[in-house]
Amino acid sequence: MISVDSLMVHKLIKQALSEDIGTGDITTNSIISQEKTIEAKFNSREDGILAGLPVAEIIFKILDENIEFIALLKDGDKMIKGQDIVIVKGSARAILTGERVALNFLQRMSAIATMTNKFQEAIKPYKAKIADTRKTCPNFRIFEKYSVQIGGGIPHRFGLDNAVMIKDNHIQAVGSIQEAVKLAKQNISFTTKIEVETENINQVSEALESGADIIMLDNMSVEEMKKAVELINNRKITEVSGNVSLETVNLIASCGVDYISASAITAKAGIIDIGLDM
Amino acid sequence: MISVDSLMVHKLIKQALSEDIGTGDITTNSIISQEKTIEAKFNSREDGILAGLPVAEIIFKILDENIEFIALLKDGDKMIKGQDIVIVKGSARAILTGERVALNFLQRMSAIATMTNKFQEAIKPYKAKIADTRKTCPNFRIFEKYSVQIGGGIPHRFGLDNAVMIKDNHIQAVGSIQEAVKLAKQNISFTTKIEVETENINQVSEALESGADIIMLDNMSVEEMKKAVELINNRKITEVSGNVSLETVNLIASCGVDYISASAITAKAGIIDIGLDM
Amino acid sequence: MISVDSLMVHKLIKQALSEDIGTGDITTNSIISQEKTIEAKFNSREDGILAGLPVAEIIFKILDENIEFIALLKDGDKMIKGQDIVIVKGSARAILTGERVALNFLQRMSAIATMTNKFQEAIKPYKAKIADTRKTCPNFRIFEKYSVQIGGGIPHRFGLDNAVMIKDNHIQAVGSIQEAVKLAKQNISFTTKIEVETENINQVSEALESGADIIMLDNMSVEEMKKAVELINNRKITEVSGNVSLETVNLIASCGVDYISASAITAKAGIIDIGLDM
Amino acid sequence: MISVDSLMVHKLIKQALSEDIGTGDITTNSIISQEKTIEAKFNSREDGILAGLPVAEIIFKILDENIEFIALLKDGDKMIKGQDIVIVKGSARAILTGERVALNFLQRMSAIATMTNKFQEAIKPYKAKIADTRKTCPNFRIFEKYSVQIGGGIPHRFGLDNAVMIKDNHIQAVGSIQEAVKLAKQNISFTTKIEVETENINQVSEALESGADIIMLDNMSVEEMKKAVELINNRKITEVSGNVSLETVNLIASCGVDYISASAITAKAGIIDIGLDM
Amino acid sequence: MISVDSLMVHKLIKQALSEDIGTGDITTNSIISQEKTIEAKFNSREDGILAGLPVAEIIFKILDENIEFIALLKDGDKMIKGQDIVIVKGSARAILTGERVALNFLQRMSAIATMTNKFQEAIKPYKAKIADTRKTCPNFRIFEKYSVQIGGGIPHRFGLDNAVMIKDNHIQAVGSIQEAVKLAKQNISFTTKIEVETENINQVSEALESGADIIMLDNMSVEEMKKAVELINNRKITEVSGNVSLETVNLIASCGVDYISASAITAKAGIIDIGLDM
Amino acid sequence: MISVDSLMVHKLIKQALSEDIGTGDITTNSIISQEKTIEAKFNSREDGILAGLPVAEIIFKILDENIEFIALLKDGDKMIKGQDIVIVKGSARAILTGERVALNFLQRMSAIATMTNKFQEAIKPYKAKIADTRKTCPNFRIFEKYSVQIGGGIPHRFGLDNAVMIKDNHIQAVGSIQEAVKLAKQNISFTTKIEVETENINQVSEALESGADIIMLDNMSVEEMKKAVELINNRKITEVSGNVSLETVNLIASCGVDYISASAITAKAGIIDIGLDM
Repeated sequence: MISVDSLMVHKLIKQALSEDIGTGDITTNSIISQEKTIEAKFNSREDGILAGLPVAEIIFKILDENIEFIALLKDGDKMIKGQDIVIVKGSARAILTGERVALNFLQRMSAIATMTNKFQEAIKPYKAKIADTRKTCPNFRIFEKYSVQIGGGIPHRFGLDNAVMIKDNHIQAVGSIQEAVKLAKQNISFTTKIEVETENINQVSEALESGADIIMLDNMSVEEMKKAVELINNRKITEVSGNVSLETVNLIASCGVDYISASAITAKAGIIDIGLDM
Repeated sequence: MISVDSLMVHKLIKQALSEDIGTGDITTNSIISQEKTIEAKFNSREDGILAGLPVAEIIFKILDENIEFIALLKDGDKMIKGQDIVIVKGSARAILTGERVALNFLQRMSAIATMTNKFQEAIKPYKAKIADTRKTCPNFRIFEKYSVQIGGGIPHRFGLDNAVMIKDNHIQAVGSIQEAVKLAKQNISFTTKIEVETENINQVSEALESGADIIMLDNMSVEEMKKAVELINNRKITEVSGNVSLETVNLIASCGVDYISASAITAKAGIIDIGLDM
Repeated sequence: MISVDSLMVHKLIKQALSEDIGTGDITTNSIISQEKTIEAKFNSREDGILAGLPVAEIIFKILDENIEFIALLKDGDKMIKGQDIVIVKGSARAILTGERVALNFLQRMSAIATMTNKFQEAIKPYKAKIADTRKTCPNFRIFEKYSVQIGGGIPHRFGLDNAVMIKDNHIQAVGSIQEAVKLAKQNISFTTKIEVETENINQVSEALESGADIIMLDNMSVEEMKKAVELINNRKITEVSGNVSLETVNLIASCGVDYISASAITAKAGIIDIGLDM
Repeated sequence: MISVDSLMVHKLIKQALSEDIGTGDITTNSIISQEKTIEAKFNSREDGILAGLPVAEIIFKILDENIEFIALLKDGDKMIKGQDIVIVKGSARAILTGERVALNFLQRMSAIATMTNKFQEAIKPYKAKIADTRKTCPNFRIFEKYSVQIGGGIPHRFGLDNAVMIKDNHIQAVGSIQEAVKLAKQNISFTTKIEVETENINQVSEALESGADIIMLDNMSVEEMKKAVELINNRKITEVSGNVSLETVNLIASCGVDYISASAITAKAGIIDIGLDM
Repeated sequence: MISVDSLMVHKLIKQALSEDIGTGDITTNSIISQEKTIEAKFNSREDGILAGLPVAEIIFKILDENIEFIALLKDGDKMIKGQDIVIVKGSARAILTGERVALNFLQRMSAIATMTNKFQEAIKPYKAKIADTRKTCPNFRIFEKYSVQIGGGIPHRFGLDNAVMIKDNHIQAVGSIQEAVKLAKQNISFTTKIEVETENINQVSEALESGADIIMLDNMSVEEMKKAVELINNRKITEVSGNVSLETVNLIASCGVDYISASAITAKAGIIDIGLDM
Repeated sequence: MISVDSLMVHKLIKQALSEDIGTGDITTNSIISQEKTIEAKFNSREDGILAGLPVAEIIFKILDENIEFIALLKDGDKMIKGQDIVIVKGSARAILTGERVALNFLQRMSAIATMTNKFQEAIKPYKAKIADTRKTCPNFRIFEKYSVQIGGGIPHRFGLDNAVMIKDNHIQAVGSIQEAVKLAKQNISFTTKIEVETENINQVSEALESGADIIMLDNMSVEEMKKAVELINNRKITEVSGNVSLETVNLIASCGVDYISASAITAKAGIIDIGLDM
């Protein structure tokens, strides 16, 4: 489970606050007195799955450690249009200054959780799980991957140092899948899995013999996927990638694969409308 | 014009590379020899407006300063499905390791430029300009605002320290628009503009008398907007915000406002499909 | 109002502490026991305007969060020679280690507030306000600009990204003020003001027609300034810059300008003598 | 010799550029084309000692590595009013954007070198050397201490970790100079010197017996200083501190001390007027 | 293959240089002229396996990009006592200032490579590979893990985010290995391996049924290890940990395990004597 | 006394935690509930001198500020095999996640304190003190130097900016020790000591006349050292360096030198076995 309460996440949140605040919130600091306190409610203006509440709490606590943050829901909960999510009480300056950044996290993270959930629901009768990709917004990946998990998906490798993924160009460079996997095994930790991207049944056969842990079926037709799953016969983990949409995902899942990775759950999630009412 | 070749942007790009690469691209480093060179082409798989090419160049130059980066298009150019954008030549390791991060920037930035362009095109006969908002992805704002300009839009304030924006809560806290503007004027630089959010014609009248530079018409009906524009009569800059979509934006522009800010051009732009062919 | 209690300011304060402390205060750590507590008073050895007290508090709280900091005055208060400013109680190590850095901030910031106040007092019957410049000490700007406000001045733009300032070289590069302003307008946010530097009445006329928000009268004679103010006739904000000293500032203000910017209030403020008595 | 071409100094210079430039020089980027080149001269508008030229060069090279920087003088040279210091050729954008920060360094650093030089000249017949203090501008110390050396002074300890300085409060805490020095010796490196602050002849006697390397005569009368120097009789290094001004420094030097530390050479140096002519 | 030419490694090297150099190498800067050039040779004073040469090159290039670095050996090569490793030519200041930090890396990294090599040689007839642990020096891990690979070993997981390692306390907390593995599988990426620490044959049996990828035999007797290997029968990867020394490692390897992890190869490697001759 | 509770040390500790934890402890976060609390004891598995306890406390407090840390011993105490050092109570997640990093500090720091103590004990009847060197692990120096002090040793200069150390190459570059010391004196602070490395009696004589504060006897025979000590006759501080081991150190000390610096106390200390029992 990816955590959003770590040193690394705190640094990213502070950076996001600095991005928005810079030398200071000149409007609020000019108009609102330092002593004024208010009570505000985050309120959902769309149905969806909530994600990012612990991030919002960290944001307000950074701005003023005395802010009260009374959660009415928790990450992963369904929220319906109009539902209150959290009550925030305390320094008016801190709440007004932090509002936008808190919403920017909550809206994006909830949208990703919601989109992931839709994909996962769409393949319900099947065993497949929806996975994310590395097609994430630069410097926002950990929040996207956390939200995918909140939405019921499963994370793919975090980055280039977490697992081996042998692609087209790697294979071409050394001549065969066999050779590429062999080279990888010699150079990486034995605690690291190896995945091979395959584009046809021949490559699947080759990958099966190669010592890879995971076989990716890349942009294959439904017929090919079915054949591949049958051939692999649970000897390797299978992942499908390419052309995955809410329209196609059920059919893909019906082929019997283990994982379906979809950039759409992060890159096309957009935002869920959440607002702050005073 | 926001620049994407500054100390600040270089830092963000290095951070994005570290996010993806961590301790190293274990696949590429294991399989591809350090001496191998390749030639690759970034290719558009959708029509759109290109944005982010200078960022992609910085990425590859950071990974290997000897990479050749031969641009075939430039930011702001229309690209059509199938069109080559840039040829990248040099170290196979650098190109394979940098590919994903470069694409993550290019795909998002081009999508934002493209979406902005669609909004701007949709209001063509009118004088209004499409502006962005602060509803951006945390730690990615400068790239989003740059892309909006590339797409033909105009940037709103960068953050809370750049311009005064007096909202509902600020007005309530001190009793009137007049008082809020007065307080702001006393506390901020004379080089800073003041914008006031108004929700009805009464507030517009009040704002007109207040010494504000810009009046925002927030979530008003078309009737109200027309009345407000007539009342303001070019004495202040006008901005419309709220419920701005590709469907509604032309009607809004027809009311005669100066600027229309839309979170959709950044938050709902998604990605444009761009790929790398070896 | 510039704030000195932000993420950015905390970072600069920690950096200043590291600059002075490095690997540790070897004198204090060798001689003073960790348990010893003391009480110390910051005491003014000159008349002046106090600025920087919140910074001093942050410094001691960073070194030991249990330090008591009992303020007897607040920023902006007049202090007279011999007056106590604040009582600091707690860990002797923290107080002795932080003393110099706290004084370095207080002495410089109070000197700037005091100098600003002298300039502002010197133009009292007139409407003009004293403004600061970008001629600040590298990496100390936010503290200087805050102190100017504490002293009764008004801040100019914080940096190159906050407002447009069209100078000589910009005008020459494109041929005319008109053209320079037009180019700026096309490229910047509509929330950003444009200032034009003028050196004679012809340029003032040109600037008046250009769409600039602020006209700077640069190094003009009193006669020229008067003529310019008359010509502008409140249609634009006016600022005077160049050769502004305590001797000249009243005469300049008498010309009827809105703002007078003076590097002397920061660059020539020196320090106010403040000490720490145990 | 303090160097201004180190990793630490490069970081501070980049930070100063970011402080001024932020998200970009919106004026220059809007008006000046990326290809335009210019030639500019830094020109002294006052007599003084030049300091900071290597810093100015680093600044322009950071903004554009192709800038030509043709030095006509070097740090430590006398410059007379009207004299050209350096020719800078290349990208107009880089030169206009970097101008202010380069001047902010040059003006302050040259002022400190010039002031130090005046103090050093004022004590010419005597052996004493002028030294700096820790009363420097936060986060600017290395540039101040470098400038003192350029002006002919000698640096005091850089910070709290470089040498032991036993003051009043340290002595009181343990009862005697003897005891304080003993404790220090037990805890610090044998490569570190110990200085003791004394306020009268009794303390000087005590310090002489204590194993300290340097005796500071703090705020003593001329009579006392003479007596102290006689008593010490070159067995320890002597330093005078307190009430050191251009008026008093010659008399102090005449007492035969080795070093005279003066906060005025840094804290009251102000700026030397240097400008950039295109 | 862990790389020591990445953004992350460059940052660590710069930090190490700052740790040693601080405000400047006052000896070299005072005595050696900026123009002086020298030629120096790194020379081995002990037999061993070389590791760290690319790090040494980065160090000198950071200090002066014109330094010539002529490698006579490469990482992984055997060096014998008295053998020259690399010739460094150029700025005397850069070479003298960088010498100690370069040697600190080279001596430690080569010692680790050499020690790893001894362990690997000691188990030569067997299939087992020597692996490292997380018992590394804080902030030096990537250099240690790289050196292990150079010495012929194989890296274990880099840190807590790279692979699951279920220990005693995790098992106790949820009651059984089965349950712990199940929980992990639900929460982590499918690209991540799971290792379980076992202390006896019963736990090995349990782990075999649990879906773990790797079974660690922790502190078992030779008899138990043999029995465990037989029981596992290549259905899982096996690792031995605990009490691994040069004396015991051959016997452990003879039990037929796949990997033997030893903290001694990093924590007890000490340094190999390498010097710099001018 | 070097302190391990400073801004600089906190930064290094956070960096070490990030090195190990990265995006999160996936094992603990998956298996252990956020509410679970445990009690754990750090226990020594070898005799030695304890060092690093304040670092361990900082580590756990960073991970969870509510952790109770009940020290049973303090730094500098002897610990015997089997002895409990500290009880840690609180969040199971924080304790399990921080365990390895805390041990990595404690094991290395205690090993250095223990090794230093052995060297110091070995020279007991003599006045000499054991000192450390700059041969430390990159980015770990402050922890090593602190541990040397805890073990009864005395620190040498921290880095290149703390004291002058004139070596072979410096002397050759300017022709004589006299000249090198003279140059140093002109360029450095009067608060900084100068040490000269000598290789024979002639150089010792030269150094005696040079104004250096410390004379290092480098790699001399016992006869030479005795002669040198006699010649110097307490007029300078003496330090021996080179070939210092537990076998040779007593003989060296018997020559009457003041300090003996040994890289072995840090570079060859290895680790002391300390474990965590739940």
